[in-house]
Amino acid sequence: MSGRQANGGGGAEPTAIRWRRDLHRHPEVGFTEFRTASRVAAHLAGLGWEVRAGAEAISPAHRLNVPPEPELAAAYSRAADSGADPHWLPALRGGNTAVVATLRGARPGPVVGLRADMDALPIHESADPAHLPAREGFRSVHDGVMHACGHDGHVGMAVELAERLSARPPAAGSVTLLFQPAEEGGRGARAMVPAGVADAVDTFLAVHLGLGLPTGTLASSLDGLLANSKLRATFHGVSAHAAMAPHEGRNALLGAAAATLAVHALPRIPGHETRVAVGRVSGGTSSNIVPDRAEVLLETRADEGAVNEDLEARARAALLGAAQTYGLTVDVELIGGVTTARADRPAVELVEAAAAAAGLRLVTPAAELGVASDDATAFMRRVQERGGVASYAGLGAELAAPHHTPRFDFDEAALPLGVDLLEAAVRGALG
Amino acid sequence: MSGRQANGGGGAEPTAIRWRRDLHRHPEVGFTEFRTASRVAAHLAGLGWEVRAGAEAISPAHRLNVPPEPELAAAYSRAADSGADPHWLPALRGGNTAVVATLRGARPGPVVGLRADMDALPIHESADPAHLPAREGFRSVHDGVMHACGHDGHVGMAVELAERLSARPPAAGSVTLLFQPAEEGGRGARAMVPAGVADAVDTFLAVHLGLGLPTGTLASSLDGLLANSKLRATFHGVSAHAAMAPHEGRNALLGAAAATLAVHALPRIPGHETRVAVGRVSGGTSSNIVPDRAEVLLETRADEGAVNEDLEARARAALLGAAQTYGLTVDVELIGGVTTARADRPAVELVEAAAAAAGLRLVTPAAELGVASDDATAFMRRVQERGGVASYAGLGAELAAPHHTPRFDFDEAALPLGVDLLEAAVRGALG
Amino acid sequence: MSGRQANGGGGAEPTAIRWRRDLHRHPEVGFTEFRTASRVAAHLAGLGWEVRAGAEAISPAHRLNVPPEPELAAAYSRAADSGADPHWLPALRGGNTAVVATLRGARPGPVVGLRADMDALPIHESADPAHLPAREGFRSVHDGVMHACGHDGHVGMAVELAERLSARPPAAGSVTLLFQPAEEGGRGARAMVPAGVADAVDTFLAVHLGLGLPTGTLASSLDGLLANSKLRATFHGVSAHAAMAPHEGRNALLGAAAATLAVHALPRIPGHETRVAVGRVSGGTSSNIVPDRAEVLLETRADEGAVNEDLEARARAALLGAAQTYGLTVDVELIGGVTTARADRPAVELVEAAAAAAGLRLVTPAAELGVASDDATAFMRRVQERGGVASYAGLGAELAAPHHTPRFDFDEAALPLGVDLLEAAVRGALG
Amino acid sequence: MSGRQANGGGGAEPTAIRWRRDLHRHPEVGFTEFRTASRVAAHLAGLGWEVRAGAEAISPAHRLNVPPEPELAAAYSRAADSGADPHWLPALRGGNTAVVATLRGARPGPVVGLRADMDALPIHESADPAHLPAREGFRSVHDGVMHACGHDGHVGMAVELAERLSARPPAAGSVTLLFQPAEEGGRGARAMVPAGVADAVDTFLAVHLGLGLPTGTLASSLDGLLANSKLRATFHGVSAHAAMAPHEGRNALLGAAAATLAVHALPRIPGHETRVAVGRVSGGTSSNIVPDRAEVLLETRADEGAVNEDLEARARAALLGAAQTYGLTVDVELIGGVTTARADRPAVELVEAAAAAAGLRLVTPAAELGVASDDATAFMRRVQERGGVASYAGLGAELAAPHHTPRFDFDEAALPLGVDLLEAAVRGALG
Repeated sequence: MSGRQANGGGGAEPTAIRWRRDLHRHPEVGFTEFRTASRVAAHLAGLGWEVRAGAEAISPAHRLNVPPEPELAAAYSRAADSGADPHWLPALRGGNTAVVATLRGARPGPVVGLRADMDALPIHESADPAHLPAREGFRSVHDGVMHACGHDGHVGMAVELAERLSARPPAAGSVTLLFQPAEEGGRGARAMVPAGVADAVDTFLAVHLGLGLPTGTLASSLDGLLANSKLRATFHGVSAHAAMAPHEGRNALLGAAAATLAVHALPRIPGHETRVAVGRVSGGTSSNIVPDRAEVLLETRADEGAVNEDLEARARAALLGAAQTYGLTVDVELIGGVTTARADRPAVELVEAAAAAAGLRLVTPAAELGVASDDATAFMRRVQERGGVASYAGLGAELAAPHHTPRFDFDEAALPLGVDLLEAAVRGALG
Repeated sequence: MSGRQANGGGGAEPTAIRWRRDLHRHPEVGFTEFRTASRVAAHLAGLGWEVRAGAEAISPAHRLNVPPEPELAAAYSRAADSGADPHWLPALRGGNTAVVATLRGARPGPVVGLRADMDALPIHESADPAHLPAREGFRSVHDGVMHACGHDGHVGMAVELAERLSARPPAAGSVTLLFQPAEEGGRGARAMVPAGVADAVDTFLAVHLGLGLPTGTLASSLDGLLANSKLRATFHGVSAHAAMAPHEGRNALLGAAAATLAVHALPRIPGHETRVAVGRVSGGTSSNIVPDRAEVLLETRADEGAVNEDLEARARAALLGAAQTYGLTVDVELIGGVTTARADRPAVELVEAAAAAAGLRLVTPAAELGVASDDATAFMRRVQERGGVASYAGLGAELAAPHHTPRFDFDEAALPLGVDLLEAAVRGALG
Repeated sequence: MSGRQANGGGGAEPTAIRWRRDLHRHPEVGFTEFRTASRVAAHLAGLGWEVRAGAEAISPAHRLNVPPEPELAAAYSRAADSGADPHWLPALRGGNTAVVATLRGARPGPVVGLRADMDALPIHESADPAHLPAREGFRSVHDGVMHACGHDGHVGMAVELAERLSARPPAAGSVTLLFQPAEEGGRGARAMVPAGVADAVDTFLAVHLGLGLPTGTLASSLDGLLANSKLRATFHGVSAHAAMAPHEGRNALLGAAAATLAVHALPRIPGHETRVAVGRVSGGTSSNIVPDRAEVLLETRADEGAVNEDLEARARAALLGAAQTYGLTVDVELIGGVTTARADRPAVELVEAAAAAAGLRLVTPAAELGVASDDATAFMRRVQERGGVASYAGLGAELAAPHHTPRFDFDEAALPLGVDLLEAAVRGALG
Repeated sequence: MSGRQANGGGGAEPTAIRWRRDLHRHPEVGFTEFRTASRVAAHLAGLGWEVRAGAEAISPAHRLNVPPEPELAAAYSRAADSGADPHWLPALRGGNTAVVATLRGARPGPVVGLRADMDALPIHESADPAHLPAREGFRSVHDGVMHACGHDGHVGMAVELAERLSARPPAAGSVTLLFQPAEEGGRGARAMVPAGVADAVDTFLAVHLGLGLPTGTLASSLDGLLANSKLRATFHGVSAHAAMAPHEGRNALLGAAAATLAVHALPRIPGHETRVAVGRVSGGTSSNIVPDRAEVLLETRADEGAVNEDLEARARAALLGAAQTYGLTVDVELIGGVTTARADRPAVELVEAAAAAAGLRLVTPAAELGVASDDATAFMRRVQERGGVASYAGLGAELAAPHHTPRFDFDEAALPLGVDLLEAAVRGALG
């Protein structure tokens, strides 16, 4: 990792890195990005961008799995106390933590849209001094929350790009930065689309850093993005004293256990990348009470939307069957989901030309590197429906540990390279 | 339910009912009975009883499954803010929430020991107006905590008994009231015994109300108490991104699920009442992270200590096997456990004579009514080892809903009857 | 084991032992007792008893779980080749292997009914020389079939009793011996009752040897017999090539596996002896074919008919749920089942008087000794419905290994004692 | 299906179809191909080929999962009674059912090796008149055994090829036909390789018909063959009476059930085709006996040998863990397994040229068509190790139902096309 050297000789720290470190210290999970979004809005408004935030940028009713009100309120207060922008904060109340910023050139022209995702993950960050954020003092100050996927870097790059574009605005056309909440779980983009924020975009780009690609490289199109469906199954049984009347109870955990095994036993589909996972189970209080409630979070993924729908249907059947097996009922709720999208050749070529300008070497990602999901596909599909073109690129950044793990960290040297890439792409698209 | 009529004509509410309702509003789970214990200590000291509290009444090192320090501290603060006695509170800090109070007669003589358990349960109390505590305004003020087993009534009766005995002290001998924390889980009595608080007791009695017996009746001996073992199993796996590298993870929830099914499949033992239950499972954060940790709370019970030990051993083997099946490891910790005890004929006869004096009708509990566990057996065995006698009685009190359920409530008319019983038993034992 | 000495000084081997050893060599499972039943019929007819066999003694339509025709035919041929009685054999064809024999006294009088069950078990008998039947040359000649419950002894005693009664017939009344097939599985008695064979019985007795009771003792009433339900669940899925199209298959074994775990996880019922067991699973052919069919044999038991019905209903729900979980269907068939019955005091007293005459010491069986099931209860209930009295006794016979295991063997010294008991009971009942 | 027309105008039925139908009526599972192999040997010897059979063609000690001796003996007798060749049959006794036949040209030259697999599957063939073999009278005469993968066609083509080559022998070089037993299960080729039968081969070809390819097409190389491991796990518990002493038993079926679920829950491996399947479970006899033994057949597959080895290791760990969970032990035996192989370009080109000569259209198989396994890879790897080249081709033949299902049937018109292909390839290779 060579992040320190990347800053260049004696100069000030680049904006992207400065912002990234600040955000890394203050991670916020999906729909609670109050501090992040309000500061982004304030900064870009200050740079002269036209800023929409809150319900103008996201459709509240289309958000899935919004945290319960007490959690939103607590996160809001915490943000208010730790540097959120007081002007923009109220618009975000209730979890409408989206920001859309547009810079218009003097003359009309094409519209370029770029996505930056802002949310962190519910992971405890490593405190080991070998972990750079711990050693350099920007480890998360919020126990159990961590930027472990690189979204802090995505926002940092977008902010520096905004500064550069403000410094030298395009002559024609416009640029729209889509700062989305809740990428994890596939919940933010799908709710921003109905707010119309991508409707006018002619060329859409999303970039994700890391993904196993070396610093200095670029994968100009990651077509292997997986569709996914995220479900919350709540098993309902009957509570009873486990010693005095176990037969009067119906143990919701038995349904959760059977469902966990059944979901993981869903079949492979030849010729397709698929995934199934139960990621969270919780139910019950103490060993002497038969628990009447258990919650299971699970997901299915596949490299084709239809295959994923098939897996989701099988998972739902398994949940129902597991409930019936143990005399329970179960409610199954879709709490997130993304579809797949394919890149358009013109968009890929634009990115490849920008990579050349930024000095990035083009690479083909290994098959297994492209198997994540990203709800940027909701923007891509919308833009394509309206006649525009889109791509999703992978920006090389060496990793200290895999995405979504407590020691995740990326080579900050990738950030200035990424800003160069984005700037070149925008200027290329706007002619 | 006829609690209101029980108060008699125009007189004031009996102490037992008044205390019961106050405690019901302020329930505290095991080892956090700071408000309860401090108020009991203060009240009895004010009545002239010799009071020991904290580490004089309980051996800190023998406590199992003490809540983590932040929870203890939060409960301590909450108690301090809601009426705990400031003089006695500090002695209880850290969860040493036991109180032992002794009233000595003028002359030496036999020692009678009575147990009152103080802890509540992690249950959300019903807010339905049909639920008496909700309707009458003494529903729990602490969300998720509830006196759902009747321990509030036990303490109420013991406090009123103390008042009566102070008003007319015994001529000879002494009475020791053992206010124990953490009966649920089988953790409090086993830690008070090593503090020596039951060593001098000649006749020990414990009374539990409810248990399916009608108000106005008494079961003079509940020999069917079950031994139990309560275990916490923590499965350790490997975290990974569920889509990018599921094969690099080891999902701790799979072990928890297999163990849940395996524990419930432990065999029946002909000729014995046995129980097995997984009461709580929790693990993981979101569906896209393979969880590296899952916790399972479970218990075994049997009507003989040795049979319970056999079941516990089988459960431990099942936990290890389930871990191995999914490439995990597992730590298994005993977090509570009680043994069985048999009543002594002289103690039973004492109780039966007191029942006659109190106007209670003797009943034989149905087989299925006596199948709970109670760690009063730890006191019983200690007293018996030292040459004393002991019994455990069931006091009739009609129930609105079963023990350990959100609508549990008992007929308060049972409380004055219970105080009469205890007073008669004490005076009977002391001659 | 002292079977050899039991024969008395130098005299010939008692009939009961001689018959027992012959039957032990030629065991026949339920509804294939062709050799056994035909030889019994021939022998008793030769002694002058009035004999009904086949459809006169059993209602073919009421038989559950009759083996498939090819198995019946094979067993029939084998019997024909190994000593079956050619005169009586044809009546039994198709599995109607019941025999009812009556001896009438000169004058009318009460009717005594005795049950003897004839079937063996699908168990491979031990060939170890330490196993008496192996050492003494009467080990099963049919691989995989074994008299491992003592029914060979039951028939032997009934035959010797018939000889003694023929030698000195009762003056008044009559004796009916009910030789039933298929006691294992609870299938024979329930089909003989509709044939009317127990309708005239005034006093009914059934005796089972072994059960953990020492030779020379008698338990005059085993009230703890369990009701049971035996089910065959057949899961239907979809076959597919396991490598080329696993997703097109629905693996019936997954349903069988989930059902196996779920049935074993059915709850304990406080205050009741209950049992649940999956005893057989089979499905599939080779590892590369997704199996479309799996069969599960299971049973529930309880010490009360209603409790057993509750468990059976839960088991059926679990089977349906397990099928649904894995996209399967399931057929569930009742293939056997017995109910409970209580002994009548006059019948118990008759047995106790006979025990005294036979020099047997009365014992109370340990709780765990009476927890088997026996479909003699179908005869008991029928006799009781018609105004008669009934009991079921346990005859002491020390065992080399438990019932239903490959080294099961009993002390043959118990057989002459049993014949003495039965003779005394019959003569006592007939005055 | 146009099999009838394929025979051409008025002429006799081609040898390939005639042999195919005869073999289809007399299917024989792996290592019991006594009739098939002996007739092949006799016929080719009669044509002047140099024939090795039995232990000269296969290494007995390297065979996995040979059927037990009684099954071999029964199959041998059946073959002897139904047209096996009496001269060649004895050499095959004990399951050494391999035949290697060589035709040498006048001059030395390259050696071409072709594989033909002979075994059938344990599947009940459909008797529906809509199923061509049923309608046309060549349905299997052996209940429960069926040529459901097309190996009957493979042998038929090889035999007709032998006739054609005998009729017009190559001038130089030689042809070796490798008639292998037990392709299903991956057991035959791996045992023929140590007998040296492929050591001299310069160019090796294997052809499989069907696979979803239309009649008249050819896939010249199926590189997607999967490696696999086939395991037999035998769980050992303790038998007991399920009602009297369930706690003394250890139910082997519980281990089998838990293992079945665990094997199916093995993780997906990103970037790889993998498979897991439990295809057979059997254990126990009746519901009232706790079964002490249960057998599970399972397999893992992957598109890389190393990935399959990883899955196999995980499956073995799961089996051990499942056993431990329920107090059992387990023996795990490898009963079959194939590795992967890659085609060599010269061999592929040879096949493609032959296809052109035979009028077959080249197609690229869909990804999901190539995901079977075939132990021809053992021959391929051996030939490649010795410096030769190899390929494995798919011959189009429309199917009535998928491979390994009861209504499987293929378009016989493919057979003459296949013989044309093979003849062209052989003559092409020998110049």
